[in-house]
Amino acid sequence: MKTLHVELGDRRYPIHIGSGLLGRPELLCPPIPGRQVLVVSNTTVAPLYLERTRAALTGLRHEAVILPDGEQHKTLVVLNEVFTALLRHRFDRNCTIVALGGGVVGDMAGFAAACYQRGVHFIQIPTTLLAQVDSSVGGKTAVNHPLGKNMIGAFYQPRCVLADTDTLATLPDRELSAGLAEVIKYGLIRDLPFLEWLEANLDALLAREASALSEAIERSCRNKAEIVAADERETGERALLNLGHTFGHAIETGAGYGVWLHGEAVAVGMALAADLSARLGWLSEEQVGRILALLERARLPLTPPPDLTADDFSRLMAVDKKVQDGRLRLILLRGLGQGVIADGVDPVRLRETLEARR
Amino acid sequence: MKTLHVELGDRRYPIHIGSGLLGRPELLCPPIPGRQVLVVSNTTVAPLYLERTRAALTGLRHEAVILPDGEQHKTLVVLNEVFTALLRHRFDRNCTIVALGGGVVGDMAGFAAACYQRGVHFIQIPTTLLAQVDSSVGGKTAVNHPLGKNMIGAFYQPRCVLADTDTLATLPDRELSAGLAEVIKYGLIRDLPFLEWLEANLDALLAREASALSEAIERSCRNKAEIVAADERETGERALLNLGHTFGHAIETGAGYGVWLHGEAVAVGMALAADLSARLGWLSEEQVGRILALLERARLPLTPPPDLTADDFSRLMAVDKKVQDGRLRLILLRGLGQGVIADGVDPVRLRETLEARR
Repeated sequence: MKTLHVELGDRRYPIHIGSGLLGRPELLCPPIPGRQVLVVSNTTVAPLYLERTRAALTGLRHEAVILPDGEQHKTLVVLNEVFTALLRHRFDRNCTIVALGGGVVGDMAGFAAACYQRGVHFIQIPTTLLAQVDSSVGGKTAVNHPLGKNMIGAFYQPRCVLADTDTLATLPDRELSAGLAEVIKYGLIRDLPFLEWLEANLDALLAREASALSEAIERSCRNKAEIVAADERETGERALLNLGHTFGHAIETGAGYGVWLHGEAVAVGMALAADLSARLGWLSEEQVGRILALLERARLPLTPPPDLTADDFSRLMAVDKKVQDGRLRLILLRGLGQGVIADGVDPVRLRETLEARR
Repeated sequence: MKTLHVELGDRRYPIHIGSGLLGRPELLCPPIPGRQVLVVSNTTVAPLYLERTRAALTGLRHEAVILPDGEQHKTLVVLNEVFTALLRHRFDRNCTIVALGGGVVGDMAGFAAACYQRGVHFIQIPTTLLAQVDSSVGGKTAVNHPLGKNMIGAFYQPRCVLADTDTLATLPDRELSAGLAEVIKYGLIRDLPFLEWLEANLDALLAREASALSEAIERSCRNKAEIVAADERETGERALLNLGHTFGHAIETGAGYGVWLHGEAVAVGMALAADLSARLGWLSEEQVGRILALLERARLPLTPPPDLTADDFSRLMAVDKKVQDGRLRLILLRGLGQGVIADGVDPVRLRETLEARR
């Protein structure tokens, strides 16, 4: 097991990464200050890992709420089921919510923890690669609104994260690939050696070799933890983490939540960002080729759905959280391993990218 | 005009108190960093003050959303109307939400500001006495759940509060009295001279004399601002502000939201807290008499609804936010002007109070 820390002053917390962590009470119980625990999971993950998780909550009162699986259920209405469960069990302000599942479960359980009685304790047990490398670090929680993804949420930090690599054994191939999209992102925005390591080790990751997965998760979390420690509220550098996300959110919202996996949409978004960066003269064609080749090897899509027009993109991107006073802000690349925040991108070049569909 | 400051470090903000503040752009506009403003009001207040408020937002893009009036509408479903309005207008992370109304509008607009895109700017224009002396100071925002009042919310500070005493001219008598309940609370928990001032000036307040109202608002806000500055997250002293609230929330929830005004329920709660304090030997009968007399002069109720039994109270109070790991925590009095946090109150005495109904 390896342990990283996200350095956020008095909200500093550990991320434990390794095999067999789920069944270890000595990791799970000490960060729980009270006696009441609600495990939030979903219909896919609960049958696999809920029992093992509850068994590790020794000496505590633990209840569970099982949400429907899928991004289309990340809504205020489903969130309310968590509040109802907490109130039915008469859980108080010193209770702890444990998220057991992927990014959707983590986002909802974390937002519920942020809001219930104006804030209760929170622990993350991410069970997908995407959640382990992305959603479990940084404290972003949210639900979707029909008019925009992740529009209702909070910054709220967990007390501890357990990333058990064993849970990746049951992950569908498509979700493994979606997680790799976010892994590749860290290489692209700030870590060229990691990008090169990924190019060398992608086959091992796809074969789910434990040591390769563990290394990829650790290096991803380390990159994200460094960024978040420097800029918790996304007033600066943290925006780099949104590489591919403004395009990606437009795809997710446009196609209807749950049709595309988040990582798939981000992969297309990164391909578009690479294309646009090349059009602005910031990346060579050879560099774009390397990015697309790596995404393709990770079995990720590279082009948006054909029925999502350039006009659809423009409309959907205009409500993105990265828009400030009407000016679109995009994360682009000025080289491999070098993300940049680009304000007021040339709309003609953007349009070319949206229409090119290479 | 008088100006107090709530001292919260980099979230320090001013409370302006006085007559004719609504129409003054030089107070309202400088704390707004962006160009987009959504005014949140309700069907009662909007016809009276919305136009004047919007007229003061000179040079800014301002939209409005009008919510139904009443505590029974302080729900996630109605809150979502605010998010929908923000997204329809394509408002971004640099927008500002202005609450124009009483405590319900302030709670909902503030919670919407806390959650929209994980936090946007917020300004309060409280138009009821209760909101001016209570909800506008301290950053507590929330909506209700059918199983408990204010169970879903956030701590979120405004950038500025404008308490325009002119708006009290249109306030129904019942709401004026409800506001006085919270005013009296400050005297009871920590400010004996203010309590004595209230005993001397209650008739002037009921007659809505401007100078008396202004003085009562200022002294109330100063008391609350001092407490909040010392304990923003209610880990200690701030709990004193809940005098009468654990009983009061039980009454509000038990009777159905919107039947009792919050201040009315708090008045009964303070009467019960006084009774219980006397049973514990902490207050004399004469002191209880002074408290009840002042509440009565303020035209406030002193006894719970007859159909709310002691058992109902016990059940409803068990889910209160002041409960910690199953132990009920109540705010009681050890003298006039001396609130105390009482953990593990003798249940026999509590039962006597709930059954006495003096």
